[in-house]
Order: sequence, then structure tokens, then C-alpha cells
Amino acid sequence: MNIQRFIELALEEDIGREDVTSVSIIPTTLSGEARIFAKSTLVVCGHEPASLVFESMGCTYHPQIDEGRVAHHGDNIALVRGPFRNLLTAERLALNFLMKLCGIATHTRNTVQGINPNLRVVDTRKTTPMFRKLERDAVRVGGGHNHRFALYDGILIKENHIMVAGSVKEAIARAKKNAHHLLKIEIEVETLEQLTVAIEAGADVVMLDNMTDAQLQEAVSINNGRVLLEASGNMNRDRILAIQNFGIDIISMGGLIHQATWADISMRISSL
Amino acid sequence: MNIQRFIELALEEDIGREDVTSVSIIPTTLSGEARIFAKSTLVVCGHEPASLVFESMGCTYHPQIDEGRVAHHGDNIALVRGPFRNLLTAERLALNFLMKLCGIATHTRNTVQGINPNLRVVDTRKTTPMFRKLERDAVRVGGGHNHRFALYDGILIKENHIMVAGSVKEAIARAKKNAHHLLKIEIEVETLEQLTVAIEAGADVVMLDNMTDAQLQEAVSINNGRVLLEASGNMNRDRILAIQNFGIDIISMGGLIHQATWADISMRISSL
Amino acid sequence: MNIQRFIELALEEDIGREDVTSVSIIPTTLSGEARIFAKSTLVVCGHEPASLVFESMGCTYHPQIDEGRVAHHGDNIALVRGPFRNLLTAERLALNFLMKLCGIATHTRNTVQGINPNLRVVDTRKTTPMFRKLERDAVRVGGGHNHRFALYDGILIKENHIMVAGSVKEAIARAKKNAHHLLKIEIEVETLEQLTVAIEAGADVVMLDNMTDAQLQEAVSINNGRVLLEASGNMNRDRILAIQNFGIDIISMGGLIHQATWADISMRISSL
Amino acid sequence: MNIQRFIELALEEDIGREDVTSVSIIPTTLSGEARIFAKSTLVVCGHEPASLVFESMGCTYHPQIDEGRVAHHGDNIALVRGPFRNLLTAERLALNFLMKLCGIATHTRNTVQGINPNLRVVDTRKTTPMFRKLERDAVRVGGGHNHRFALYDGILIKENHIMVAGSVKEAIARAKKNAHHLLKIEIEVETLEQLTVAIEAGADVVMLDNMTDAQLQEAVSINNGRVLLEASGNMNRDRILAIQNFGIDIISMGGLIHQATWADISMRISSL
Amino acid sequence: MNIQRFIELALEEDIGREDVTSVSIIPTTLSGEARIFAKSTLVVCGHEPASLVFESMGCTYHPQIDEGRVAHHGDNIALVRGPFRNLLTAERLALNFLMKLCGIATHTRNTVQGINPNLRVVDTRKTTPMFRKLERDAVRVGGGHNHRFALYDGILIKENHIMVAGSVKEAIARAKKNAHHLLKIEIEVETLEQLTVAIEAGADVVMLDNMTDAQLQEAVSINNGRVLLEASGNMNRDRILAIQNFGIDIISMGGLIHQATWADISMRISSL
Amino acid sequence: MNIQRFIELALEEDIGREDVTSVSIIPTTLSGEARIFAKSTLVVCGHEPASLVFESMGCTYHPQIDEGRVAHHGDNIALVRGPFRNLLTAERLALNFLMKLCGIATHTRNTVQGINPNLRVVDTRKTTPMFRKLERDAVRVGGGHNHRFALYDGILIKENHIMVAGSVKEAIARAKKNAHHLLKIEIEVETLEQLTVAIEAGADVVMLDNMTDAQLQEAVSINNGRVLLEASGNMNRDRILAIQNFGIDIISMGGLIHQATWADISMRISSL
Repeated sequence: MNIQRFIELALEEDIGREDVTSVSIIPTTLSGEARIFAKSTLVVCGHEPASLVFESMGCTYHPQIDEGRVAHHGDNIALVRGPFRNLLTAERLALNFLMKLCGIATHTRNTVQGINPNLRVVDTRKTTPMFRKLERDAVRVGGGHNHRFALYDGILIKENHIMVAGSVKEAIARAKKNAHHLLKIEIEVETLEQLTVAIEAGADVVMLDNMTDAQLQEAVSINNGRVLLEASGNMNRDRILAIQNFGIDIISMGGLIHQATWADISMRISSL
Repeated sequence: MNIQRFIELALEEDIGREDVTSVSIIPTTLSGEARIFAKSTLVVCGHEPASLVFESMGCTYHPQIDEGRVAHHGDNIALVRGPFRNLLTAERLALNFLMKLCGIATHTRNTVQGINPNLRVVDTRKTTPMFRKLERDAVRVGGGHNHRFALYDGILIKENHIMVAGSVKEAIARAKKNAHHLLKIEIEVETLEQLTVAIEAGADVVMLDNMTDAQLQEAVSINNGRVLLEASGNMNRDRILAIQNFGIDIISMGGLIHQATWADISMRISSL
Repeated sequence: MNIQRFIELALEEDIGREDVTSVSIIPTTLSGEARIFAKSTLVVCGHEPASLVFESMGCTYHPQIDEGRVAHHGDNIALVRGPFRNLLTAERLALNFLMKLCGIATHTRNTVQGINPNLRVVDTRKTTPMFRKLERDAVRVGGGHNHRFALYDGILIKENHIMVAGSVKEAIARAKKNAHHLLKIEIEVETLEQLTVAIEAGADVVMLDNMTDAQLQEAVSINNGRVLLEASGNMNRDRILAIQNFGIDIISMGGLIHQATWADISMRISSL
Repeated sequence: MNIQRFIELALEEDIGREDVTSVSIIPTTLSGEARIFAKSTLVVCGHEPASLVFESMGCTYHPQIDEGRVAHHGDNIALVRGPFRNLLTAERLALNFLMKLCGIATHTRNTVQGINPNLRVVDTRKTTPMFRKLERDAVRVGGGHNHRFALYDGILIKENHIMVAGSVKEAIARAKKNAHHLLKIEIEVETLEQLTVAIEAGADVVMLDNMTDAQLQEAVSINNGRVLLEASGNMNRDRILAIQNFGIDIISMGGLIHQATWADISMRISSL
Repeated sequence: MNIQRFIELALEEDIGREDVTSVSIIPTTLSGEARIFAKSTLVVCGHEPASLVFESMGCTYHPQIDEGRVAHHGDNIALVRGPFRNLLTAERLALNFLMKLCGIATHTRNTVQGINPNLRVVDTRKTTPMFRKLERDAVRVGGGHNHRFALYDGILIKENHIMVAGSVKEAIARAKKNAHHLLKIEIEVETLEQLTVAIEAGADVVMLDNMTDAQLQEAVSINNGRVLLEASGNMNRDRILAIQNFGIDIISMGGLIHQATWADISMRISSL
Repeated sequence: MNIQRFIELALEEDIGREDVTSVSIIPTTLSGEARIFAKSTLVVCGHEPASLVFESMGCTYHPQIDEGRVAHHGDNIALVRGPFRNLLTAERLALNFLMKLCGIATHTRNTVQGINPNLRVVDTRKTTPMFRKLERDAVRVGGGHNHRFALYDGILIKENHIMVAGSVKEAIARAKKNAHHLLKIEIEVETLEQLTVAIEAGADVVMLDNMTDAQLQEAVSINNGRVLLEASGNMNRDRILAIQNFGIDIISMGGLIHQATWADISMRISSL
């Protein structure tokens, strides 16, 4: 579903038949401006869905701080203009997008700021259903990178797949035979022995799952540049700082998204 | 959008054309069971969307712990059975629902457990777009209550409405005149003077926004049982414990939902 | 479904693949004007759907008489301009909306004109499926008022609910416990004894179903202003005139909508 | 839109998020039966949409009187069984379909009963938007016939088309040239001179619009069996009886549908 | 489904989440022009879907050769302008429409060019699912004509229908009784005896299926102008030339569409 | 769009309101069997969409020859059973799928049969809009292979991309930087010099566009196994046979799909 359609449905969720409060109280003839401002320090993100919400309601949206920049308490993130009835009806949904996405961008920034630029910290498929694109965009706004988007655009063989296939070697062989020739093959391993097998079987990328720092270092040494290495499991900023120079290519971390809470943002009418 | 349709779209988001990994590696002929288990202490929630995900993929879902009960690390939350290819394709989306909803139920439980039963702690409209019903259900599973669902089924006059209407009194008068006769009228006030005006103008419910404990106590005294009182702003478990016996009817708290992070849950094949 | 989408589907119902008559006979290059005029005395209603029909077909619509005003035989209700092929293809659907909605507005006007302004005559949920909003708007255009919109925005406990709940008292108690705090509770009663029970159980509104004039008068006396009273069943203009000063707050009357027949309206090309 | 989808949308219109009354009061565990019965004399029609409404809500529908048969006050039209909560939520929409469609079938029966079987009394495209199929079916249930369904499956050249084409002759010539070879050509005429022109130009059917009885008789004589003749305008049962043996083939009458009001039907729980 | 919606879905089929190549390589800031040109001799067809594809992607489309005209190797069919990223993303879908539709128009032209103008060579319902309108338009662009559009706008009784009905006579009788009065009745026959029966039973059109040239000639003689005659089966340009002056009214030929292969067309950036 | 939904829309395209012929002639009470048989030699393909068409109409479909097997004139491809009215209404759409898909499978078989098994002959994105999955499946049924599915699951840098990027080297550098780490990078080159540049810039796959046999041989030699090589342009069976042992990995050929014409298949009632 495209973002425009998603916002129509989300407006329908919140408005339904009509905003009985605003329809009862606010005449259609009054227009003006409101400001959307930060109530805590945050990384700005979400102008696109927020602006689409207001535009869907016949209002205009004027960003005051670029995506990726920091806003402090009281800073205006955006100004919105239009009929007051529509501004007030749109307010909650637009803020819900902004608060959620600024929350992810802020949490990502706090996690990855200043680390070794040769190391990509990427998200995972642990995303809110129907929000993958928006949440991944927020990760990039916060300075992170993205993994494959979904099940259709990358091969990632996980522990459960290996169990059914019977072995790391067999799983890789099947993937090479059946997938089209433009997809790389990544496989998750839990031991260094599996790493060696995976490389020899022709994997292009290997995910090192829940390994200790020592294991990660040894994995880099075993690999010797043959495949891309991705570390996963129990990651946080402190651990990233500790392992950032081991030579791992990628760290994947679902928590960039699912451990972020919403930022605090409000809207207030600024001119009647 | 109904939940069935929502899940179809969410599956489409994650699967797209096909799960290239599972299609390449897992034969369609193999079936078996997997277990979904807690990796931290959590309140179970989300069986309905999780089961619909697996059923949409031709698998069955067997809850092992009732919604609202606590699961500890290692406890099975559910068993799932079906073709392995489909189990693995469905896994991520189902876990995404469970991790998110258990997270909210757990956070709500941690916030409201054991408080005065005459006090309703309710959510707000600060919900993830398109997830309002699921998130509100999770609040109830965790022991909280719900506010109005949306803009169409309740009148709540907020500060911005009052600014446009000109006064508390005028805003209430308009609502009484224009709304149908089965809707109550709630209004948000920021001072005790406004409280008195609101009661005299015929409000049915008054929201006391960002008041101190002392103000809340005085509000109860001023009101003297004439309208329902709802306190809002800067709430957390400690504050709730402090004010729970003041005589306030309702505390509303968006953070029940938007300050919850995901619970940790995994799926592992349990029988080949 | 929003009105724009509804009209697309209705156009599809009537046009399907194409209007074979107009496509065969009317060149795309000819444009002009047609007039839509009354063929009987009627209250004008339906400009919005009619204009959307013509606009969906690339024509413009120019109202000549405001909604709620009376048109007499021969009066122009609207002028429409555009390519003749499109005007003729759109004609039937637009007239179908106008004839139906003018019919309801006219019937409502004939029913409620000049009655006691403290008495609200309201519609019910007996509306043509998918036309509730349009038909309710037509009731207001004709001078009537509206009841709750649907099952989701008001609680109305009817005879069948009471039978299942076991008693008036129990039904009201359940509603108070389970509904959110912004909804009033209305209950239908068939006797004056039930009225007393309902008031004491905490109903906010009581519907007096199929009562005689004498019963209605006594109900007002019993109530003594404690709850809102709504009379329902066997209503028509003569009865409304007879009971309008009893002190009843509301009369509900499905026939405002379902006993209205279509008004007579035609379209004729006025300039080639 | 198919009928199943239409009913889903109509249920959504009436239920929205949920039937707050039934959800609050009726436990999900109680099931039973209700009867749907006539409160006036009527021709039964509408079992299909009514049954689909109840089936969409997980209930069953058991017709007690066949479509086209007469029901008298108190007669059961159908029995419905299922969870009470669902029966009560579905009730209104199902009755709305039944009351509307029985109304049309009854009005059609009252109009055409017992007339000359060689004369077809048919409906027109003056139908409620989105209800054409249901309303046309009701006309047939009441003993009437149907005209073309829509703009795509028949050519009917009306006065406005002739004005743009320039003449009856030119309009027919264009239709013959451009339409595919399986469509007949009907044209509306207002004078007997036009009738002659139309026949000579190759019309297959001629509609005689708003003619007097004498003109209709002369039209039959002029035609002498060459084309089908359809009379239209100012028709009611008395006029049909007066002209039924003139030799006209078809009478078309929009009022079969748009002058029908709803029949009176109720639902009551019959076994707890 | 309208063409605009169809193109949205087709773009979604090809683009999905995003065109990863163009997004990775082409900056959003660069705009320019590309030319779409013939790589073989072809009849131009398909400007409408091709232009809608580019317009859906924010580009403009400028036809260089009118529909129905011949393009030779190297001739520009259209120019397109817009952001390069969008031009390259839209390219394939637009070319797929053009190559397919030019292919049909070219094949039709090669089949029907220069034949007796009193003979209509028409297509059939053997069309690519969801492409009937586009393919039929291409047939007309190539100089052919169209049969009925679909099952809803014409009666064509085929061999299987006759088998179930029991006889040619019975099948025609049922059609005359049940269809509305604006549809003609066509029937397929396999022998000259059936032709006579069909004419006498009141058919309006008779399809002569798989007859020899001699049979076709005799059929014309038997018919003597009473009904329209359509020949079908084993048709190609040579046969059409051979039988074009027999007096048959229509030849139907599915191969106009399903034996056409795609024309060769490319797009190249013409100005950076 | 999933195949089930696609078939619903395609049935709607052909049936619309109703199959007026079958509804008029075939009673709903008669059921039986029909056979679907080849009228020329063909490779069977399309059982899935054909069966879904019949099942959507309440009939059953019984394949008689497996996909990928050859059917000769007169062989039954499938039997279908159900109400005759529905069998005849479904017939055309089901045959349209079968004739089209058998045509592609047959053409592919004729092209690739017996070639060097180390060489993959693959399709391209030159597919009928909305039919990509079905057409690609038919290519595999005929013995071919598939390229990337769409723009979202593979990077293929073509001549137009290189023009905008400025050089082969720059285009590859951008792709490596911006795409996620599970996608390979393919680039189209027109000269052997470009091949060398592409390999050195880090391409994973190189498409050799419109090269002579001699150039292809030299390309293999230059490459020396470093990247996958794909030959494209002016391919047919004879050329494939000539170059099959050069050491090219992949030949891509849009004509597998767009130069295939429909196979000849009919349906006949086999038991009344």
C-alpha cells in the first residue's frame, strides 16, 4: 500500500464518520496557523507522512527543521496552516507519525553516532506491520543503514531453515540452484565451524549470531576477507563501541526500531 | 480495515512476490511444529493477530498461555503446526505482532497493577496509526481501560478548540446544540477557574490537564461529584500511586502505549 | 465509503463499459448547457452528490436554488455545462440522487414545518443501506434532526436487548460498566413501570415506544425532568401536532425517510 | 460491486467499529432464535440480501414464505438463528433490505396484477444508485418485467440525443453505423410524425413518450407491426387497464420502483 | 477496472517497493528527454496506456506519429520528458504496452487491408484477460471491427448451448422469452439445415461455423437477406480475399489478436 | 494482485452483470461434464488459473495431462464438471488462460529443448502487464529459466543508466554504495572494453548486448571466470545451438514470451 493510501486509512481510523467535536464547535470559515514543537530533545523525522496528513485535510505543512537535525524543547518542527476545523482534526494523526518516527531516529542516533564509518549498523525485519518503509527511513535519518527490505529481495538462511534442509551445506546448495542469478546468499551461523562450512559452500554473506567478542574476532580471522560478515544479537551502543574495529562489516540490530519510544511533540494554535 | 485484511496487507509487505529463501530451500512436502516462546518475563497478548497470520498461511496456531497471564523466559506462548515453508514465511510477521502487543500489555500491567479499583487508568488517541484497536485491546489485557475510540464516538473539547471557540462556555454551548443526544461532553481545562465554568456550562466530564497533586485535590473538592473528573499529563506508576485515592475518576495516559517497547519472543522448530 | 468513491461505483453501475448510445451518436467535440428543473413542488436537496456526478464526468454544476428552498414546477434547480456526450451519460445518476433526496427533504418539511421548536423530530437507523449520511442530511435540510448515526456512536438498549439481559436494570448496569465514559445510555421501554425502573437504574435517555397520548403525558410527569424522553411509534404530522406541547424532548420517526417517494425532476438541453 | 461486498460495506456503515450496545450487554455465549414478521400485508422479497447479512454475522436465515407470495400481519417471513449478540447487530440492516424490497414488490403487484399477458410493464433506469439489480429483481418478483439494465447493454436514443444529433434520422443512422451488430436500436419520439420517420430510418423499437390514449392507438395503427412499441409517461394502474389491449408491446414506468414506500416488518426474539 | 487503475497495478508489478537500480544510480535532480522509436515496420497503437504510464511517474509523453499510421525502423513514435530516474523506471511497462498493441494493430492491418468495405472483419472474446478493451481498440486501429464486448451485451448461442437446450429452435425460443427487448439474438450453426431452422425460429444473426467456401455461398443464397450472416473458423488473409464478395456480412477471427506477436520498439535517452 | 483476485476481475471483465445467453437458455438445475482438448500439438501449461476460473464459478477442474507434458490434437487436457450454465460462462476465460500459457510453454520448449544444461536461457521483463508471474511460470514449464522478477529484486544497469551516470565505473560505484548488501550488481555492456571496465569496477554479472559470436567468445576469454556472463539480443534456437558451448552462463531472450502465439484449445460438453 502506498503512503497516500495508508494515510487515508489512518485518517479514517481516527475520524470515521466525522470529528464530532470540531464539527460541532469550529466554524468552517475560520483559518489560521498552528505550530508543531518539540517538548524534548529529538532528531527530526517524519515530515513526509505528517505533511500528507495535513494536505489530505486541505491544510499546508511547512517544515521548520530539516530531517536528521536535532530539535530542542520548544523548537518549532513545523508550521501548519488551513481551516482550524481541519487542523484540529488532522492534529493527532500527524503527531502520532512524528512522535513515533522522531523516536526511532533519535534512538538510532544515540546508538550509532560517531562509530567507525566502515561498519554498517543495520535494522532488521522486526518492524511494526505496515510501517517498514517509514521505520527504515527513520533509521537512515538517524544515521543507521538498512538490511534487505523483505523476504522477496534477499536470501537469508536462518537456523530454522538449516534444520529443515539438514545442513548448512545443503541449504546453501539449494539456494544457489533455485534463486535467480542476481541475489546473494546470506546464512546465519551459531558456531565458527559452521562459518567455515558456509564459506566453503559458497555463501556470499555470513551472519554470526549471538557470538562473544572473542568469537567475532576469530570469525574475522577465519574469514580472511572471503565473505561479508554480519554480527547479530545482544547489541547496544556500548558493545558496538567495543567491537567496532574488529573488521566485522555489518551489525544488525532490531532494537534500533523496536526499543525506541515516542518523542514528545505538541501542536498549539499560534495565530487566530 | 478489518484485522483479516490488515494482515493480508502486512503479509504482502513482508513477503511480496515470494519468500525467496524458503521457496528455494524448503520443500512443500515437509510439515511439522514450531514453538513460540518468551525470552523475557512478559504479559501474553496478541493471540488473535498471530493466529490469523499463521492461518492465512495455511498453518494452525495453538495458544499455550491465556492472554493476560504472565510468561517467563522459556515458556511456550503458542505452538504452530503446518508446512515448514509456510511456518517460516509467517514467523516474522506473527512475532512482530506478539512482541509489540505483549510489550504494551506488560508495560500497562507494570503501571496499573494493584491500584484503587475505583480509578480507571485509560489510554488516549496517541496510538500507532492503524493499530488503535489492537493497542487498546492490549491495554485492557494489561489491566488498563480505554478512553473514547476515535473522533467520531465522543466529544472532547481541548485547549485548541477553546481558543477558536472563544471561551469554555461558548465551546460547551455549541457542542450541546450540535451533537446528537447520546453523546456526553468532555472538556479539557488548565485551571480550577475553568473547571467551575465548565461544570456550570453543562459539561459531563472535565479533563484536568497537567495539574499538581494539590490542584487535583482541590478540583475534586470543587466538583463535589457533579461531573466525572479525568486527570492527564506527567503520569507514571509512582504518581498514580500517590494520587489514586484523591477521588479522581479517570487518569488518561498515552504512555501506556507509546512508551512500551517490544517484548522478546522467538520461534524455533520443535519437531521435524 | 466516501461519497466520491460511492459515486464512482454508481457511475460504473449505470455506465459499465460505456454509454453505447451517446458514444455512437454524440461527437466528443460538442459542448453546451442543460437545465435541471422541477416538475412538481419540492424542497431542494442533493446538490453535493449531483455536482459530484457531473464533475466526475468532466462537467460543471451550477445550483440555481439553495438547499432547503422550495422549487415549483418549471423552476431551474441547477444548470450543467460540459461536453454533451458526458452530460447525457451523467444525467440519469444525478437525477436519481436529486429526485430521491428532494423527496425526503420535501416529506420531512411537510411533516415538521411549524412545530414547537423545543421538540426535536429525529430520524432513525431505518435508512437505505449505504445512503445513511445522504438521507440524514436530507432530513436536516427538510427541517428535521438526527438521532445517533450508527451502532458505534450511541447506546440504545431495545426490547430484544432487555430480553437477553433479563431486565431493564441489568441491561443498564452492563452498559454503564462496559462502555467508555463519553457515551450516554438510552433505553426503550414499553410501560410506565419500566420508565421508572430505567430512570432509577441510571439511564440518561428513555425511549417511550408505541405509547398513547395519555401515557406520554404521564411519562413526562413521572420523569419530572430527570432524563431526556423520546417518543417513538405511529407518528405522523397530525399526531406530532397533537403531542408537541406535552414536554417530550424528542420524537423519532423512521418514516421521514422510508415513507418519502421521489420528487419529479428532469433535464433538458438548453443551449446547443 | 457484487452483493456480498455491498453487504460488507453496508454492515460497516451501520456497525463501524462495533455495536457498543450489544457488545456491552449481550454475552457472546448466548444463542437462540428470532422471528422476522410482517406488520402489514406485503409481497415477500429480499431473502437473498437478508440472508447474506445474517450469514455475514455468523447466523443462519430460514425463509418461511417464498419470494413473490403474500404475507399478512403477523406472518413469519423468516426465522434467524445464531448468537444473540450477532442477531441483534445484524437486525437493522437485514430489515432495511427486506422492508425496501418488499415495498417495491408489493407496489409492483398492486400495479400490474391481472393485466393482459401480452403487455410487458417494465421498469426504467430510475433506480436507487447501487440498488439497480435488487430493485429490478423486486419488480420481477412483483410481476413486472425489466428494461435494459444500464447504458452499456442497449441503445435508447432520447430527446436530448436527437437534439444534439440534429434529427431522428441522423441519430438512428449513427447508431447503426457505430454499435456492434448484436444491439437493437430504440428511439424515443414525441409525435406520430417522428414515429414514421423512426420506423423508416430503421429503428427496432420506438418509445412513445407522454402520448394520449388516442395517439397511442393511432401509433399502433401506423406501425402495423413493423417495430416494437413502448409507451411511457403518466402511467398508473388505471391507465394501464385502460390501454392494455391497444396492441402496445411495452409500458415503461419508473414509479414501480421510485413511488414504492417501505413495507412494515419487525424482528423479535422467539426463543431464549 | 479502469485503465488508470490497471496501470497503477502494472507499475506496482514491475516496480514493487522501488527500482533499486535507478534509485541507486540516478540522482533525482537530473531531467531530460528520451525517444521511443520503431525497430521494425509497424502500425502505431497504444499512445494512451503508454502516456498514462509516463504521466503516472511524473513525466510527459509526446506522440510523434498518430495511431493507425505506419512507423518504419528508426522513426520516433513518441518523445518523453521528465526526471531521468522516472523515465527509466517507467520505460519497460510503457514499451510492453506499445510493443503488444502495435503488434496487434500491425497484424490486423496486414490481414484486412483493402478488402471489400461491406464486409466487417471482427475480433472475438479470445483476448488476453484484462486487456479486452485495449486489444479491441488495437483491432480498430488496424482497420478491423469489433464483435460484442462481453457476455453481458449480446446473445450468442453456441454449439454447447444448443446441446443443453436440446435444439436450435428451443434455444432461440428461450432467448427471445428471457432477454430484454433491446438485444438481438445470434446463433452458431454448423450445417445449412440448422441455418434454415435458425432463421425460421427468429434468429437475428447466424454464425456459420467452419464452413467451406461452397457452403458459405449456399448459405447466402438460402438466407436471401433475412438475417445477418457471420462466417467463422479457419480464416486468414488469403481466405478473406477469396470469400470477400460472397455476400457474407461479417467474418470473425480471434487470430487478429491471439496470433499477433509484439512489434520491436526501444527507448533511448536523447538529451542529457 | 494475487491470482485469485486477478481472476475475479477477469471474470468481471467478461461476464459483467451476467452472461445473458446462458442465463436465458440454460436452466440452473442441469449439471454435467465438458472436456477441454488440444487442437494442435502443445506443451500443457495453465492448470492453476484455469482451475481457479472454474472453481470461482462453482465447478471442478480435473487435469488430464501434467504441466510440461505434450498434448496432441484431440487429447484431453482437462475435464470440468458442474452446472452447465456455469461451465459455459467460465469456458472462454479459462481457455484464454490455457491457450496463452500453453503457447508460451510450447514456444519455449521449441527454443531450448536439448541445449547444453550449463547454459540458462532466461526470460526478461518484456512480459504482458499483470501476467509476469504466469508467463514466467510458463517459461519454466517449457524448460527455460527466469531472470530477476522485477525492478525491486535485482540490480541491472543498462545503457540509459550508464549515460546518466557518466560511465560504467561510476554507475557500478553508486550501486555498490547505495544498495543493500544482499543484491548482486549486473551491468549491460556493448563493447569488450566496457566488459573489462565493468569487471574491474566490481560488477558481479555482465550482460553482453548484441554482440557477434566472435565477440562473445572473446568475452568469455577476457572474463576468465571472474563474473557471470549473460548474452542478449538477436537470439533464436539456431543461434543458441551455435553458441551454447562458448562458456556463456546465461542467454536472455524476451521472445520466449512475446513471440509466442496462442495454442489452439477447445471445450465441448461430453456428458449431459
